[in-house]
Amino acid sequence: MKTVTSPAAMQQLSLKFREEAKTIALVPTMGCLHAGHLSLVHTARATADILVVSVFVNPMQFGPGEDLDAYPRDSDKDKQLCEDAGVDIFFFPSNDAMYPIGHSSFVEETVLSRELCGRLRPGHFRGVTTIVAKLLNIVLPHRAFFGQKDAQQALVVRKLVSDLSFPVEIVTCPTVRDTDGLALSSRNKYMSTEERNAALCVPGALEVAEQAIRSGTSDARMISSAMQEALKRTPGVKVDYVEVVDPSTLEPIVAISGPALVAVAVRIGRTRLIDNRLIGGPDVEPPTPWLPPSP
Amino acid sequence: MKTVTSPAAMQQLSLKFREEAKTIALVPTMGCLHAGHLSLVHTARATADILVVSVFVNPMQFGPGEDLDAYPRDSDKDKQLCEDAGVDIFFFPSNDAMYPIGHSSFVEETVLSRELCGRLRPGHFRGVTTIVAKLLNIVLPHRAFFGQKDAQQALVVRKLVSDLSFPVEIVTCPTVRDTDGLALSSRNKYMSTEERNAALCVPGALEVAEQAIRSGTSDARMISSAMQEALKRTPGVKVDYVEVVDPSTLEPIVAISGPALVAVAVRIGRTRLIDNRLIGGPDVEPPTPWLPPSP
Repeated sequence: MKTVTSPAAMQQLSLKFREEAKTIALVPTMGCLHAGHLSLVHTARATADILVVSVFVNPMQFGPGEDLDAYPRDSDKDKQLCEDAGVDIFFFPSNDAMYPIGHSSFVEETVLSRELCGRLRPGHFRGVTTIVAKLLNIVLPHRAFFGQKDAQQALVVRKLVSDLSFPVEIVTCPTVRDTDGLALSSRNKYMSTEERNAALCVPGALEVAEQAIRSGTSDARMISSAMQEALKRTPGVKVDYVEVVDPSTLEPIVAISGPALVAVAVRIGRTRLIDNRLIGGPDVEPPTPWLPPSP
Repeated sequence: MKTVTSPAAMQQLSLKFREEAKTIALVPTMGCLHAGHLSLVHTARATADILVVSVFVNPMQFGPGEDLDAYPRDSDKDKQLCEDAGVDIFFFPSNDAMYPIGHSSFVEETVLSRELCGRLRPGHFRGVTTIVAKLLNIVLPHRAFFGQKDAQQALVVRKLVSDLSFPVEIVTCPTVRDTDGLALSSRNKYMSTEERNAALCVPGALEVAEQAIRSGTSDARMISSAMQEALKRTPGVKVDYVEVVDPSTLEPIVAISGPALVAVAVRIGRTRLIDNRLIGGPDVEPPTPWLPPSP
């Protein structure tokens, strides 16, 4: 595995791979890799000649007062995990290399970005779409891999790629969960044991929604209320949102008659957690995610 | 020469050229090609295996009340001119193909875009940067060619490409002028003979600035005033702006001590004209533009 820190050097490599008709896969991450990222890496590995994992904690997608400084970083461990997973290039640029002084160009998606997390984190998705556009231009992948845990991000990126005609296929991979159901997230590290236990209310609330929908409830407001109730039973949990939305437009659903994306965001102590479940529709059973071998 | 109207087909061709290690040059235009465009085409022809000229009147860069509908179109003649100039691909997409219903992603440059024309045409450069990003992603050129006549556009595009790491070199080519000095523009067609004569006040005002600077005037406000005076002497000319700015930042210059970009925008009847001259600095003499052979 080669570590590349210069965006220009990375781009030169990728241009050469393209000229050699080699296929490139990109897994863009903010590092502190867990089994969720490794699931993306594993899936991507099988699709391309060259597998690039980028690690860049993108300051532009953090708002004022958010956890940019506290965000966990462990690039030595990330490198080792990538090496073990058969990654070809570990792309690890600095802030200054990605955003030199005077950076003034931005990419934004203006519809899907306004829903859900977009309402609570203004500017967040503008940061995401800007860095994704930049990473696509630097790494020039044929395919880029995103996790379904960040369902809105994956949708926004798909829209960006389609609207601006980036020559890349976006692949969304299933959420990887701990055995007790909590979705893996780099931010889980922030939580104490007590908070970690409390966080189980999040997959619990999604299960409440699934049960309600499967048992015939179609009134989305009733489902949201049941989820809110379930979340409120856990002390110390503050709900940012609970929503039942159309999985492609993210617009609120009133009466459920097809697939629905149920999405939750909560804060537990200083940790913000999001999770979602796609319920109903033609593909009721999500594909089984890849899981790391047990130690 | 091949005419391609589908963005997806164009992109597939370009991806294949890239895999074959062929170089691609792009001259993006809004059609109604004149000798200014042909100068770009001629310069671009020498630099690449594959030369693509795009013709797309981009609605996103026209404001409400601007001349989108009136903008001159003559794709048959454009095709013939491109064929004669040795163009390989004439990319001529429809509005619907470029902006399908629901398009919601945009690219913007937020500093250079705010100056000069940006102040009078809000949203104009957002339209330019969005379509340029899209054309770069579709045509995947190694080099793209822009005219110095639209000096601010060329600068904004350079900044966009640098900030978002597009793998392309932006080449700016000298303004082509009629023998009497008027810069070529598709919009010159709008003017009556009388207006066309009046329009000569624009290169005239640039000459006033050049003479003043060469004779030692360094006070930019004095130069602007002299230009304003020169423009006002011509009846029917309304000045949008006259500015003396830094050629790289477009910020107003107070005292001229190095290269200066003198930029003018006027309206004559219903026609808006812009022009500029780079004065002083290390390269005093601009390179001689290519001119079409006399008939």
